[in-house]
Amino acid sequence: MTRAPGWHFLQIPGPTNVPGRILRAISEPTIDHRGPDFADLGRSALTGLKRVFKTTQPVVVFPASGTGAWEAALVNTLSPGDKVVMVRTGWFATLWSEMATRLGLEPLVIETDWRRGADPAAIKEVLGADKDHRIRAVCIVHNETSTAAKSPIAAVRRAIDAANHPALLMVDTISSLASMDYQHDAWGVDVTVAGSQKGLMLPPGLSFNAISAKALEASARAKLPRAYWDWKPMLEANAGYYFPYTPATNLLRGLQEALAMLEEEGLANVFARHDRHAAATRAAVEAWGQEGAVELQCQAPSDYSSSLTAVRLAEGFGADALRGVILSRFNMSLGNGLGRLKDSVFRVGHLGDFNDLSLLGALGGVEMGLKLARIPHRSGGVDAAMAVLASASGAAPPG
Amino acid sequence: MTRAPGWHFLQIPGPTNVPGRILRAISEPTIDHRGPDFADLGRSALTGLKRVFKTTQPVVVFPASGTGAWEAALVNTLSPGDKVVMVRTGWFATLWSEMATRLGLEPLVIETDWRRGADPAAIKEVLGADKDHRIRAVCIVHNETSTAAKSPIAAVRRAIDAANHPALLMVDTISSLASMDYQHDAWGVDVTVAGSQKGLMLPPGLSFNAISAKALEASARAKLPRAYWDWKPMLEANAGYYFPYTPATNLLRGLQEALAMLEEEGLANVFARHDRHAAATRAAVEAWGQEGAVELQCQAPSDYSSSLTAVRLAEGFGADALRGVILSRFNMSLGNGLGRLKDSVFRVGHLGDFNDLSLLGALGGVEMGLKLARIPHRSGGVDAAMAVLASASGAAPPG
Amino acid sequence: MTRAPGWHFLQIPGPTNVPGRILRAISEPTIDHRGPDFADLGRSALTGLKRVFKTTQPVVVFPASGTGAWEAALVNTLSPGDKVVMVRTGWFATLWSEMATRLGLEPLVIETDWRRGADPAAIKEVLGADKDHRIRAVCIVHNETSTAAKSPIAAVRRAIDAANHPALLMVDTISSLASMDYQHDAWGVDVTVAGSQKGLMLPPGLSFNAISAKALEASARAKLPRAYWDWKPMLEANAGYYFPYTPATNLLRGLQEALAMLEEEGLANVFARHDRHAAATRAAVEAWGQEGAVELQCQAPSDYSSSLTAVRLAEGFGADALRGVILSRFNMSLGNGLGRLKDSVFRVGHLGDFNDLSLLGALGGVEMGLKLARIPHRSGGVDAAMAVLASASGAAPPG
Amino acid sequence: MTRAPGWHFLQIPGPTNVPGRILRAISEPTIDHRGPDFADLGRSALTGLKRVFKTTQPVVVFPASGTGAWEAALVNTLSPGDKVVMVRTGWFATLWSEMATRLGLEPLVIETDWRRGADPAAIKEVLGADKDHRIRAVCIVHNETSTAAKSPIAAVRRAIDAANHPALLMVDTISSLASMDYQHDAWGVDVTVAGSQKGLMLPPGLSFNAISAKALEASARAKLPRAYWDWKPMLEANAGYYFPYTPATNLLRGLQEALAMLEEEGLANVFARHDRHAAATRAAVEAWGQEGAVELQCQAPSDYSSSLTAVRLAEGFGADALRGVILSRFNMSLGNGLGRLKDSVFRVGHLGDFNDLSLLGALGGVEMGLKLARIPHRSGGVDAAMAVLASASGAAPPG
Repeated sequence: MTRAPGWHFLQIPGPTNVPGRILRAISEPTIDHRGPDFADLGRSALTGLKRVFKTTQPVVVFPASGTGAWEAALVNTLSPGDKVVMVRTGWFATLWSEMATRLGLEPLVIETDWRRGADPAAIKEVLGADKDHRIRAVCIVHNETSTAAKSPIAAVRRAIDAANHPALLMVDTISSLASMDYQHDAWGVDVTVAGSQKGLMLPPGLSFNAISAKALEASARAKLPRAYWDWKPMLEANAGYYFPYTPATNLLRGLQEALAMLEEEGLANVFARHDRHAAATRAAVEAWGQEGAVELQCQAPSDYSSSLTAVRLAEGFGADALRGVILSRFNMSLGNGLGRLKDSVFRVGHLGDFNDLSLLGALGGVEMGLKLARIPHRSGGVDAAMAVLASASGAAPPG
Repeated sequence: MTRAPGWHFLQIPGPTNVPGRILRAISEPTIDHRGPDFADLGRSALTGLKRVFKTTQPVVVFPASGTGAWEAALVNTLSPGDKVVMVRTGWFATLWSEMATRLGLEPLVIETDWRRGADPAAIKEVLGADKDHRIRAVCIVHNETSTAAKSPIAAVRRAIDAANHPALLMVDTISSLASMDYQHDAWGVDVTVAGSQKGLMLPPGLSFNAISAKALEASARAKLPRAYWDWKPMLEANAGYYFPYTPATNLLRGLQEALAMLEEEGLANVFARHDRHAAATRAAVEAWGQEGAVELQCQAPSDYSSSLTAVRLAEGFGADALRGVILSRFNMSLGNGLGRLKDSVFRVGHLGDFNDLSLLGALGGVEMGLKLARIPHRSGGVDAAMAVLASASGAAPPG
Repeated sequence: MTRAPGWHFLQIPGPTNVPGRILRAISEPTIDHRGPDFADLGRSALTGLKRVFKTTQPVVVFPASGTGAWEAALVNTLSPGDKVVMVRTGWFATLWSEMATRLGLEPLVIETDWRRGADPAAIKEVLGADKDHRIRAVCIVHNETSTAAKSPIAAVRRAIDAANHPALLMVDTISSLASMDYQHDAWGVDVTVAGSQKGLMLPPGLSFNAISAKALEASARAKLPRAYWDWKPMLEANAGYYFPYTPATNLLRGLQEALAMLEEEGLANVFARHDRHAAATRAAVEAWGQEGAVELQCQAPSDYSSSLTAVRLAEGFGADALRGVILSRFNMSLGNGLGRLKDSVFRVGHLGDFNDLSLLGALGGVEMGLKLARIPHRSGGVDAAMAVLASASGAAPPG
Repeated sequence: MTRAPGWHFLQIPGPTNVPGRILRAISEPTIDHRGPDFADLGRSALTGLKRVFKTTQPVVVFPASGTGAWEAALVNTLSPGDKVVMVRTGWFATLWSEMATRLGLEPLVIETDWRRGADPAAIKEVLGADKDHRIRAVCIVHNETSTAAKSPIAAVRRAIDAANHPALLMVDTISSLASMDYQHDAWGVDVTVAGSQKGLMLPPGLSFNAISAKALEASARAKLPRAYWDWKPMLEANAGYYFPYTPATNLLRGLQEALAMLEEEGLANVFARHDRHAAATRAAVEAWGQEGAVELQCQAPSDYSSSLTAVRLAEGFGADALRGVILSRFNMSLGNGLGRLKDSVFRVGHLGDFNDLSLLGALGGVEMGLKLARIPHRSGGVDAAMAVLASASGAAPPG
């Protein structure tokens, strides 16, 4: 067996390339989660998170992956048999709706073609028809990781309000938080679900709920059984910056470091960087696709994701074989097609701790992979990306 | 502020002192949990765990702390309104029974004086009275971390069998696994609950269920809602050594290292080491207590824990003030008294990656702390511990 | 100040990008360099090094940077006033000859135009004229890091032999060892000088002398004063795999890991990888230079280095301004022009733990930098590099 | 082979237990030693060092172990044939004088019984007899690591002055700097030699010269050949916080962290801690020795070292066998007897990043080792140490 030299390009859309600074932070010795030093860690993590979610309301942290935070959002606010509106924008929205069913809820599913985000008008229509307010929540995936299409959360909020409907708005930001602009308070979200292993640059193992006053109020009446996920003891313990059961201390220390790094770069700069990388990546895909079998999965420019790009191959070409060539030949992991997109889509993550030259390496790997896998395309994708990255508007802020 | 120099003695009964080797392992870059390399990690973790639980049956891993594994044990096997026998051996048994209530179960609680383990005869009696088998499970904490008393699991199994009762046997081994002998299969346990941050020497963030065939069968009929904790998709994905949702990859890498370290030392040697350290610690406590205000919390020698020792102070002396003196003066964290033992008990963890000289340092810190806090005691505790550690029977195996 | 996100591209020709695996190894606790465990470390480091130098003769390790190993080569073999032939192939050859002067030796310097390696014929001529064998050594830099030109060591050996001259052959392989083929024994080298921070992928702080029997014999008569650098006590202590004074233990642990990594990849594969990356880089430079101000510094194709490429700008264009743009805008460090090449040359290191996609990122950074710095060039350099890397002959061995 | 669990007690008198914080710092990626970020590192290291040496004069850093800094002190200030006074206080003073001889100097050696420090009166006498000032330097080991005896540097300075002699004063502080009070300027030292792996808590690989104006002046006339060790190019490059050749970058990063840690604790607190630990260790040795074969090697209370304690066994008892028992049974490394003290002395390092409980563990290991090795002693050493550590005067400063 030969060793694969050099930096592994982990360009799945999460977990992302965890920076060394965070890896070193999580390798600090575990501390007593009941001791006085812990409160400093808890305080900086819990208060720093609020700035990232753009909220003044509580954000709770679970020792769990993002799937757990989905469950927490549902079990804390809903009761058996409650109706929830889910928009099936892709694979992850599907999984969330299946979870709702398994927990005893009744999802009303709005379908899409998996090539764009949620349509606020469709949501408004469903809510408008729900005269007796049996629907308790609208659940949206902000950035559908399977399709690289984002949904317009503020517009969804306006649609709910326009329908004059009391449903809670719950949003999955697992692959958008800290990569793309997101505003829990200003957008009127009731529960925001997030995870550690994407824009927050951490390994997986932490997940989050940001909670509005309305959601908290709903939790007092919600009847789904809950213990591990229960917000109440969590919020009580968090008041002193502690946790009701043993937290994932080392990941919290990593979170503290991640929050410091985001502040050092500046959230606005972080978002601009992700936007620039997404634009460069789309420029590459468009160049390849000018005569070929390659196109963007997302067809609505307003819905383009800035944290990843999903690329669709024409019928007859296999995305998984391409990914295999790229992994074995160029030491890069790309995301696979999920659900109905299996083998027809591959996904390039460009989120987290990432920069222009790493993006060029990643796109170069795709371009060479397309050639080696004999997938029809025009070359020049990397050149197109360089044109974006080196342009005035592509400029990084002065360091 | 001055820096506290030297090694921090983290002698709470978990999280334990995570060895550098494991801290370095968890600081390796996060890998693609869907990629081919992951299966090697998943395989070695999942198969290695079986040897630690002494089982040939499945062990599942949750990205969660131990509290989550309690919940998983209950929601996978039980239905709303089910009766479960819980033995309140201490604070953690209490918490588990409260969780059962919150999840919609009906705990039948057998009380104890918190100074010994569970009594199999009492369990047999309760089960014997349950003629129509409304009781679905018996839940026992193997090593009650609040009292340092262990319960005789094999005897509990025999009691259930003697009562000819079909109840499942569920056991919390959070603070005993990989520190004290435990045999999931031989002892006839149906669900074993465990966590990462004790004998497994890892940071918190992983927890476990070992699952008997009978428990698995029960899960097919159990009606408590479940998604994150559901064994079924977990076991399906685990068949190929993958996970149904994003696992806590870096902690799994640490687990792989921890399992290797346990094998290098040998589980029998690990248990003997914990037994020796517990004996030395009790010798110290007994020396201090010969004329004083200090005694073992556990009063049943057969139930002495090998992973920690709980020390009880006489009325009028405060354990928390003592712990405070020891922390500020000697850079050592000890466990506090929990629930009804608050401020009257302190707990010395001697589990995980630990050795004779570190134990002497810890006991020296307690002895000096007792003096500084003016708690009546006879000196000579460390001397008594050294006598145990340097004795022939205290010998470590040849290195 | 904003944080520079992502992986820093350290493309100076050393220190190189130290892989995380080695960084973690050097962060293992320092061990007793007189204890039994140390001998295992010493053995694997000292025996593994021989395979890298391709020698069966001793290789000694100094806690020092490469400059120290230059000094060690001279002071162990020579006496005050000895004549040595040095070929001034560039800046580092110059520094070595200046060191020789400062140590009391008399360098006979053969000049070059700094755009090629040493000329064996010139050496033969000088030696042929030295009828009374006053010349004691010929000192050559194998891979001149300031010009990216290598010298033909085997041919130099043949030239010395053809002149029937007893001079020792000493070779600096600081920037070639473990990146480009090198054979201490087969090429008849007497002292090989090397350092840790290039092909060996380590941080700086270790340096090496491989020593022929003839050099060892010379050391018995050499009169330059020496203590720290003295081979004799070093070789005596090395016999048991220990060191005469405190070694740089943690870097030795890193060396052990580096040697393991080289063996896992296979030295032949390592060299092929460096050759491929150098070819791709030259293809990029040639593309840029087709109509512009950019060319290779090395003008002799037989002497092209595989570990770095030096790029020369036309008169009137500043390499340091270009490097500044690239560092601030793209988070990449490139090597500067040294000595008479100051500001007219920049150097791209592509040695150590490196791979195709990282190289594309680096070359993309140069191409965008040329554009931003308004240095005339034809675009298409990255495309040319991709053509090399994706070609059949550019194939990495199956992983 | 079984794994030795727990923290390894590295109680040799250096390298010391490197704290995790420093190990993580040295595992940060190597940076460009010519780039702008490096100057920040260089500045904080070079200026921070001055505070530790208590000097306003230059301190230079060599990528080398302490032996190299000995050589640097000599070759920068002296010329072939120069006479130097060396006081043979133990093994390391012997090695330094042997080095002087090998470098072509003429040491005048003042002998001692290896059980105390240097005698200023003897030095004054030798200098007084040197009417024509042929003696160029007086070289003293501040803390003789082989005997645990310190020498009175300020008094030596007064002796030189009283003799009205122009000799330079050079002092080896390898095992005292940052552990015991030392004042390069106030004590009138001309060259102070130090290393990284003791009180500075780093791995080995860096060494230091602090240089007085008089020493610098001497270096302009000194004729010993030098290149690697030459202060001149080092000081020139250091003016901009760079280095003339590749520095050991990662160890410098560790040094930066070490300096920060010393400042956080406060040098005065660091010294008081070492004094307290030395007093506690001597109390243990005196307790063991009340009826037995154990005594302090150092017989002059004014000369007791605070960084280590050397313990002498009576004739017929082997220190190396004892050390072997302690290593294999208790996972602790102790220092061996050196030179004429071989096998009759063992040495306990209590310097660097260390605290009270770790010291108790170490002393407990010695006490149990004495018992297991059947070396006559009275027990109670650990008790005596606890009495010192828990006493009011033993109090650590408020944290």
